[in-house]
Amino acid sequence: MVELPKSIKNLIAAFERLPGIGPKSASRLVFYLLNTPESYVAEMARSLLAIKKEIKICKTCFSVCEGEICSICDDSERNKKIICVVERAIDVMAIENIGGYKGVYHVLGGVVNPLEHVGPDDLKIDELVKRVEEIVTDGEIEIILATNPTMEGEATALYIKKRLESLSDKNIKISRIGSGLPMGADLEYADQATLSRAMDGRREI
Amino acid sequence: MVELPKSIKNLIAAFERLPGIGPKSASRLVFYLLNTPESYVAEMARSLLAIKKEIKICKTCFSVCEGEICSICDDSERNKKIICVVERAIDVMAIENIGGYKGVYHVLGGVVNPLEHVGPDDLKIDELVKRVEEIVTDGEIEIILATNPTMEGEATALYIKKRLESLSDKNIKISRIGSGLPMGADLEYADQATLSRAMDGRREI
Repeated sequence: MVELPKSIKNLIAAFERLPGIGPKSASRLVFYLLNTPESYVAEMARSLLAIKKEIKICKTCFSVCEGEICSICDDSERNKKIICVVERAIDVMAIENIGGYKGVYHVLGGVVNPLEHVGPDDLKIDELVKRVEEIVTDGEIEIILATNPTMEGEATALYIKKRLESLSDKNIKISRIGSGLPMGADLEYADQATLSRAMDGRREI
Repeated sequence: MVELPKSIKNLIAAFERLPGIGPKSASRLVFYLLNTPESYVAEMARSLLAIKKEIKICKTCFSVCEGEICSICDDSERNKKIICVVERAIDVMAIENIGGYKGVYHVLGGVVNPLEHVGPDDLKIDELVKRVEEIVTDGEIEIILATNPTMEGEATALYIKKRLESLSDKNIKISRIGSGLPMGADLEYADQATLSRAMDGRREI
């Protein structure tokens, strides 16, 4: 059996560590790159280094940005009294892509997950509570808990709800992002948990 | 709608150009990389540049290598009179991984594909014919045509067969890699072309 050149093996190993890329895809990608122009590979290497150098975490909402404060927190047209709490920065992009949402965000940096040793203290929950305390004096605010509808996401949402309720301020409205059948779905193939959620979450029309 | 920071957009664009990676996977990979240690991203960037700097094409078989000649062509234990003709360097690795094959390789660099303007002259076919001419004087040789069993791979194999036959040397044995049902397959679900190949390729046991 022949050994692959070391630099190829190294790059395959680097690709393999990415989520959703197994050994076969990794080597396919590397052999594809071998046949691409050097400029493209150099550009990719440069971009890789750039994201670590240029991307910072917003001091207010913990989303990604290029300065101290992200463009959403910095936008005076955004309603600072509606905070959408999400797991990751990529979720901010998902919600921004639908357009229409005019509030701001708070990125937790994950969810409570005892199996992976992630507790509430590892997330930006204290920061959220502090942020809420600071703005709640100015009148009614809304917190939209938009963690994923998974077991961990639900538990995290519930935990945050309790923490915010303990502030015992009646001006905080807490909501959970809607859960039910996705658009285009078929009742027949929906799983029980989703269907049960869809029934609970029914709305008058 | 918020704009993603430029360095993130650049890296997403770079990932999107890879085969099998769409816009959604690309941004998922980039946001994953944002949360990894800088050392890993730096290592990945270094490996990317290294493959272009350190990897060369073997002068004999056109596979990838680190010197002038690849380790297979350079191995005196390999039978230089059996040449397995493959489309790409990654196919060499696939055959090497099964072990057992003791001949050498010839990497064409693709297949004849008129739709993508790839003709026989764009492949290393002339080089193969020259290579065969050089060694055939020493006695019988075998050429295994192991291009993929696709329309283009078949056409390329047929073309090479004709070119080699025109050498009108009786010492050249030309074979095509076996085609039929893959291991673990189910007759019921096999497509007609594969099943027809499997019938044609039946062997006495």
